[in-house]
Parts: sequence; structure tokens; C-alpha cells
Amino acid sequence: MTLKVYCDRMSQPSRAILIFCKMNGIEFEEITINILQGEQHTPEYKAINPMCQVPTIVDGDFTLFESHAILIYLSSKYPGVASHWYPSDLVERAKVHSVLDWHHANLRRGSVGVIVNNVMLPLNGVPSNPKAAEEAETTLEKALTVLETFWLKDGPFLAGRSQPSIADLNLVSEVMELELLSEELHDRILSPYKKVLQWVEDTKSATAPHFEEIHGVLFKTRKEFRELMAAKSGKTE
Amino acid sequence: MTLKVYCDRMSQPSRAILIFCKMNGIEFEEITINILQGEQHTPEYKAINPMCQVPTIVDGDFTLFESHAILIYLSSKYPGVASHWYPSDLVERAKVHSVLDWHHANLRRGSVGVIVNNVMLPLNGVPSNPKAAEEAETTLEKALTVLETFWLKDGPFLAGRSQPSIADLNLVSEVMELELLSEELHDRILSPYKKVLQWVEDTKSATAPHFEEIHGVLFKTRKEFRELMAAKSGKTE
Repeated sequence: MTLKVYCDRMSQPSRAILIFCKMNGIEFEEITINILQGEQHTPEYKAINPMCQVPTIVDGDFTLFESHAILIYLSSKYPGVASHWYPSDLVERAKVHSVLDWHHANLRRGSVGVIVNNVMLPLNGVPSNPKAAEEAETTLEKALTVLETFWLKDGPFLAGRSQPSIADLNLVSEVMELELLSEELHDRILSPYKKVLQWVEDTKSATAPHFEEIHGVLFKTRKEFRELMAAKSGKTE
Repeated sequence: MTLKVYCDRMSQPSRAILIFCKMNGIEFEEITINILQGEQHTPEYKAINPMCQVPTIVDGDFTLFESHAILIYLSSKYPGVASHWYPSDLVERAKVHSVLDWHHANLRRGSVGVIVNNVMLPLNGVPSNPKAAEEAETTLEKALTVLETFWLKDGPFLAGRSQPSIADLNLVSEVMELELLSEELHDRILSPYKKVLQWVEDTKSATAPHFEEIHGVLFKTRKEFRELMAAKSGKTE
């Protein structure tokens, strides 16, 4: 039975899983759950994932969610997956787990907060909360500093690795989500982090051509969002 | 060389690691980093863990932080660790990873927020922020509901398991941190969740006598905090 991947290419962990499957020749059926249209809240999807989030995989009679757990499961299940994605050496594997665990309350929290406050709420006409926006930006900048000065200090990929692991895939997908910000804000936040920017490029290259293809929807939406935001700011001038 | 565990028994993930080591006969040296006194910010500790958080382990020349990653590493490294802590079966292991990943942005985020807003800030004389306190309580209650109705629906331990895994140890330590709240708030928040309360008791029993011993400092601090809070509220009446 073909692996089913319930996902939305607008979701950063969904993209990580899609790129991973394509890179490793894992056959799968992609089932889009449009999160901007709220399809994650339908009774049908709730029966698959009661947390109402994407991604979820269904492999035969086994349903699994949480993207890190999914990437580890797929790495372990398919013998054809190259070992650099999820190293079998105990210490190297522990380093990958450490980055993935760090991600949750740092890079992901900051990134989601910045996008919600600067893109999603304004586009939905919700009054801005400058304090929340500022806190999210502080969390994100702290996380980017840790990426720049710690996780990327010993090599081109996270935790001093010479080839990408599932952690690189997941965290780069997160950084890519910042493309949804205005160009000015995006550049102001990211431009001080030279190693981070280089690592994004290195991960793109290492996962070509799948990276660009899977991010196509994000780039298209970025264009639409920026036009909408420009129109909105025009109206209020 | 003996495993070094840098920790504070007032920190929930520190307690999980200490109980795990004691349960599995892993020899270690416990080095206390007093977080209430800010010892995690000393240059000496920052050289060990630049994130300035506990716990951290040092195993020979390998330094590792993030408690989930540590528990997985220790489970994999020591052959004497009973298999229920971190199952080798691919599907069972994936379920444990899924719970651990879910933990970060849900139970942990809610629990930390509730404690910071209701205990730490008031004890430090910082004016309360009712909106932040309310949001944290909502996050915590949602997480407790998911524990009650989903993660504990199929068995006494998380993800339908008949014996505790590293996920039970970590998440129960988190729930135990709520002991620092006033008795009234603690009971109001937790009493609706009967399965959660039973699971805490089952995990305590399964890890006796180490659970009670390692939580001794928390119980002592709870008494001190409640006296301090009572004295403070007396002053303002």
C-alpha cells in the first residue's frame, strides 16, 4: 500500500517531508489539506489527525504525525535512505536529535510568531499587537544567532555535519517560510546572518531540483501576499 | 569516565534524566546548577552549554543537551536499559517520538507559562499580566485535554503502552512542576483530568522509590513558595 502524506506545501514541515521523500525515491501519494482554507478542521481530517495539523503520514494501518517523528520513521523504515539524513552512529544521531529538539521552542516559535504577527493577522484585518510582534522578532533573532554562532560553527550543515541531515531539511524549510514577509522585513531580519544564508543555499543545492519545485507554491503565495499587503497599506495612507 | 549530569532538581527535564539513570543503574555524577540563583549563566557553565539551560550531560568528550535527545542517547548507549523505555520496534518508537515532539509546543509551553505567570513573576514582585496568564492556562488546559482524550486513551501509559517510556518520564515531570502553584489553582486546573491524575500515580509507582526522592526538592520548595505567596497576599489585603 502506498504511503500517504497529508500535507500542504504552504506548511514548512510538510515541505521537509515532501523533499525528503523525493530525494530518497520513496513512493507516496500527496494529499493536500489546504490549511489557509481550514481543511485541517474537517471531521474527515480530524479522524486522521485529532490535532488538526499537517503533516500526517498513513503507512498501511499506522498513522503518525509530528514532522520530526515522521522524518525519523521514514529514515529508519526505508533501507534506500542515505545514511547522512539520520546517522546510525550514536553520537552523530544524538546531535541531530538535539538540533531537532532545540528547534521547537526557538527557531520555530520565533518564525511562526513573526509570520502570524506581520502577515497573517494584518491580511485578515486583525489589529496588530506590537508587543507580541516584538517578542516574536526577539525570539527569532535569538534563534538565528544560535544557528549562526553555534549550530553552524563547525561545518556547512547543522551540528558540524558535511552533508545535510533531516534537521537541515526541517530547519531550512522553517527559514524559507520567512519569504512570506515583506521584502524589507525579510532582509532586515536575515541579512546579518551570513552563515545561515549560506546554509540555506547549500541545502537548496544539495536537494535540487526538489527544493525549488516543492517551494513553488510558497513563492507564488509570497507574490500574492506582497501585492495584498501593498494594496492594504495603500488604502490606509 | 563517569557520566556527568549537569542539572537542577527544580527543573522538570533534569528530574526525568535523574530518575531514568537511577531506574536503569546508570552510574553518574550529579552536578547541581542552581537555576533559581542563575548559575546557568556563569561563564563556566556557558562553556559547557551555550544555551545556558539544564540539563546537559558530558559523556567523555561528548556534550549533549536537550532532555529528549539525552534520554534517547542514554537508552541507546546502555545495554542494561529495559526496552520499554525506548522501544526498538519502528512503529512503537515512532509513537514515543511523536509524543515527545508534541510535548514541546503544548504541555511544556502551557505548563511553563502558567508557572511563570502565577508563581515566578509574583514572587519576584513583577506586575502580573492577566492576558498572558490566561493564554498560558488555555494552552495548558488544551494540552491536558489531549493527554486525557488522546495520548492516554489506549493504555495506562502514553501512546497506548503498558509500561512507561521516556515520554512518560518527561511529561509526568512536567505535570509535577504544577505542584508549585497554589493548592487551589493546582486543583482547579488538574482535577478534571482523571486519566492524567491516574497516569501520574502509575508513573510514580513504576519508578519508586526514585521518583519521590528526586522530587523531594520540589515538594520542599512548594511549601516555601506557598508560604511566601500567602505572606505576600496577606500584605496586600
